[in-house]
Amino acid sequence: MVRPGGRSARVQASVHAAVHELEAELGREALTVPLVATRAGVTPSTIYRRWGDLQELLSDVAVERLRPETAPEDKGSLRSDLQAWAEQFLEEMAAPTGRAYIRDALLGDPDGSNAGQCSAYAAEQIDVILDRAANREETTPDVETVLDRVVAPMMYRILFRPDGLDTAYARQLVAGLVGSTDH
Amino acid sequence: MVRPGGRSARVQASVHAAVHELEAELGREALTVPLVATRAGVTPSTIYRRWGDLQELLSDVAVERLRPETAPEDKGSLRSDLQAWAEQFLEEMAAPTGRAYIRDALLGDPDGSNAGQCSAYAAEQIDVILDRAANREETTPDVETVLDRVVAPMMYRILFRPDGLDTAYARQLVAGLVGSTDH
Repeated sequence: MVRPGGRSARVQASVHAAVHELEAELGREALTVPLVATRAGVTPSTIYRRWGDLQELLSDVAVERLRPETAPEDKGSLRSDLQAWAEQFLEEMAAPTGRAYIRDALLGDPDGSNAGQCSAYAAEQIDVILDRAANREETTPDVETVLDRVVAPMMYRILFRPDGLDTAYARQLVAGLVGSTDH
Repeated sequence: MVRPGGRSARVQASVHAAVHELEAELGREALTVPLVATRAGVTPSTIYRRWGDLQELLSDVAVERLRPETAPEDKGSLRSDLQAWAEQFLEEMAAPTGRAYIRDALLGDPDGSNAGQCSAYAAEQIDVILDRAANREETTPDVETVLDRVVAPMMYRILFRPDGLDTAYARQLVAGLVGSTDH
């Protein structure tokens, strides 16, 4: 199912809002395209045309929710910036809501674009941290290495091996990459 | 939906076989519980009772297909064993069928047990490789470290960032962990 290109921002906003409201009121399992359409004031066919099915709609909603709201905090060094970011990332993504968004983003995503967007969000945040570190003249790994060494292990365990995930794990991954010297 | 404990291996085998046949004949999108039930010679309610819904059934089928069939090859050193295993893992999992199984395994998996089983399969294979290396008196990382440094990056990229995945990438991950000295 190919999605049309130019989406009306207004319809998208009302449909996303309807999903949020109905999820809160009725719970995730009760969602249907006709319910969402009625609440959003659009026809079901508008949703089917634009999103294909409920799973693809929920995938788009999930990616919106996974979009970072702020730039990573500047804590004065590559290691402390990366550590603070990784701890927050793990805390958000490993929470029940975070897991549900990740699953939704992956599952209603025939062309992989939403999964790619999730990874792009992380890469953008890491880029900000690495640029800052470079401006401090710190030696920095490249973004793909940070994805492999810090983001991938956290995401793999969230999806496949969730036992014993805590901030100590995030810190250990960052220390393993950047080393334990604090600046 | 809680799944009953004691499953009849015979019913499971015939239902799994029916999924394989119908997928090959009609394609994945055409599968329905009634179709699978008819082909398997069971009632739809048997499938609903045992698997909950089609997604959970497909998740179980996917995990079965992701089960390793043989022990990792002994190539004489930790690095070469790990490299051969990682290259094969990436080749299988990054293939369209492998991706589809991983997605199915994750998708119809309310309690996370199927995702956990996928990770357990990888951990068991790695354990064999590490035990062998220990018997050769090679220094070995622990299995969780191999999961973080080799398996997680491959799986993360398969799911979120699939561009440019090749055997060179698998080799690079292994070399980064075990070092480039060959024994």
